[in-house]
Amino acid sequence: MNWPQHGSNPQYIYKEAGIPMPEYIVDFSANINPLGPPAFVQERWGEFYRGISDYPDPFAMNLKRQIAKQVNVLKESIFIGNGGAEIIFLLGRFLSGKKVLIIQPAFSEYEKACRANGCEIFYFQLEEPDWLLNTEKIAEKLEEVDAVFLCNPNNPTGVCFPYSQIVELLEHCQQKRTYLIIDEAFYDFLEEDSSLPSLVDKYRYLIVLRSMTKMFAIPGLRLGYMLANKEIVQKVAAFQPHWSVNAIALHVGEGCLENHHFVKESKRFIREERERLFAFFEQNRFTVSPSAVNFYLLRDPEVQEQKTLFTFLLKRGIVPRHTYNFPGLDGRWLRFAIKGSEENDRLMEVLTEWRQQK
Amino acid sequence: MNWPQHGSNPQYIYKEAGIPMPEYIVDFSANINPLGPPAFVQERWGEFYRGISDYPDPFAMNLKRQIAKQVNVLKESIFIGNGGAEIIFLLGRFLSGKKVLIIQPAFSEYEKACRANGCEIFYFQLEEPDWLLNTEKIAEKLEEVDAVFLCNPNNPTGVCFPYSQIVELLEHCQQKRTYLIIDEAFYDFLEEDSSLPSLVDKYRYLIVLRSMTKMFAIPGLRLGYMLANKEIVQKVAAFQPHWSVNAIALHVGEGCLENHHFVKESKRFIREERERLFAFFEQNRFTVSPSAVNFYLLRDPEVQEQKTLFTFLLKRGIVPRHTYNFPGLDGRWLRFAIKGSEENDRLMEVLTEWRQQK
Repeated sequence: MNWPQHGSNPQYIYKEAGIPMPEYIVDFSANINPLGPPAFVQERWGEFYRGISDYPDPFAMNLKRQIAKQVNVLKESIFIGNGGAEIIFLLGRFLSGKKVLIIQPAFSEYEKACRANGCEIFYFQLEEPDWLLNTEKIAEKLEEVDAVFLCNPNNPTGVCFPYSQIVELLEHCQQKRTYLIIDEAFYDFLEEDSSLPSLVDKYRYLIVLRSMTKMFAIPGLRLGYMLANKEIVQKVAAFQPHWSVNAIALHVGEGCLENHHFVKESKRFIREERERLFAFFEQNRFTVSPSAVNFYLLRDPEVQEQKTLFTFLLKRGIVPRHTYNFPGLDGRWLRFAIKGSEENDRLMEVLTEWRQQK
Repeated sequence: MNWPQHGSNPQYIYKEAGIPMPEYIVDFSANINPLGPPAFVQERWGEFYRGISDYPDPFAMNLKRQIAKQVNVLKESIFIGNGGAEIIFLLGRFLSGKKVLIIQPAFSEYEKACRANGCEIFYFQLEEPDWLLNTEKIAEKLEEVDAVFLCNPNNPTGVCFPYSQIVELLEHCQQKRTYLIIDEAFYDFLEEDSSLPSLVDKYRYLIVLRSMTKMFAIPGLRLGYMLANKEIVQKVAAFQPHWSVNAIALHVGEGCLENHHFVKESKRFIREERERLFAFFEQNRFTVSPSAVNFYLLRDPEVQEQKTLFTFLLKRGIVPRHTYNFPGLDGRWLRFAIKGSEENDRLMEVLTEWRQQK
């Protein structure tokens, strides 16, 4: 099979599965805030129209200024990208030909970006069912690599590694002069705060990635940023095309950063839905990953092949994310985003039907 | 001085020039269709809002299908980019470490993209006042390079090189196995048609770039495409970040390609304005480049230093594009976009004032 590399765009999944796409589907395969964008985006949408006929500010000065204030780092330590995916590719370019360690399972673009740029790739596999970080064992591998990719909170498991472990790993990396790239694409969904960005001044090998498309539900617009020592920012910026970040993304992004209440509300809503779903899964004997964010892994321990469950769901218009291209998962789990209450209800309804049919 | 590398974003020009930015300015520094985007973009703007919360189609299938039909090439020969600038950077990556010839004067991003990727750069200088192509002389240089960048219609001069010369150069390149990259960013503004895209099947070393942001006045959205042999397309695509082209650009782009009448009207309008302006320049003893498109170079042969004219204009809210970073021009010309009739009137008014003050 040649499964799509990512969630979203469900037409490609149905095509590959050879299943006709039902008229009504619920797409659980993209980890986007179910509340949609903050209200101001639609309210001011007409105003954003005016931005399309001018070139975007290639230096994104306004957005940088806001981020600098929000995360308390210097403007020179901030790099704005056309979505997190662009920054990952630019880091692949920056690491061209070097040795890279990917802590697995992880977002598949790290490997793709590094392969495209001739890196030699090493893996460190986190083990189910908890996927915990073993910093001592990872530290042993640092000698042989130039950079480490770590996704925290982890995609696809949703597991958040403790701050103390990240700092421990950072100390090891600093000592070995190994870049530690921490992809915090889903950081916004965590209820506790960590102060990683402020560490980029202290740790010259720390690179933090952030996405603005997940919490603010704007994946169609593309927007992300990187926090790092200014020398790294300058080197990465040299590989970025001019005007890479479009004007709508910049203007919407500036507005999003002022929406603290929206972020708080979203976190609360997702926690409540997660608790409701997880209670159902436990009661109905499904196994899930110990997620702290807006998505989770699920499997039915009572069947050997999760593909039968996957097919069952697709036929009923429920679209999970397959895990065939997550090394260490290899299709033995399905990933689901936490969606709105009605959609989560529909998922539980279909899973009840699945339990009953057996 | 550290002049901005590009037009648009006039705040950077005023800052560098040390001149306070007047309240009312007319920005002639960006070569965008003065008629603005086709009417459907604003009419359907509310509908485009719905695209922001889904990931864009990373394969841009609908847009590719439309371009394939319009320019009569296979879908496999089409590559969609986040603006022409992204494609230029990906070509720089594709040509990493190779020898590249840039036909000057030209858009400055070719050199920037090639330098960022460690290319060795050679130049061929076109000579004023006509900036004509000498294919025989360029052919002599092909032995030593792997790729040639040619901007046609040329930015910044607006000169369009004859189709027969392009084909001649293409034959030389094919023979020497040298890539010929023809940037047709302003092709849409030409009144005569050439059939270069259909040649990508025949000439394996031909790469054609097109922009959709100039004719359709959507530089804020970012959209461009490349036409080339499918092997080149595959190699370049491996360096592109996933979801690089945002959803709004894709949807607006699909609509734009149906607007044949808009394109025809824009060409007519620009030709009429160009003729009106050029008559004024001749009468008032300004020298201009023989442009066939929507911008032109201008100088006042009666002053040594064009910077005095540049400053005079900036102070009166007229923002031309400086030419300090166009090798071979080095500030001896100013570039102007053809804008709407009122704005062009204002330019002529200020230039009349300039003539009278001396």
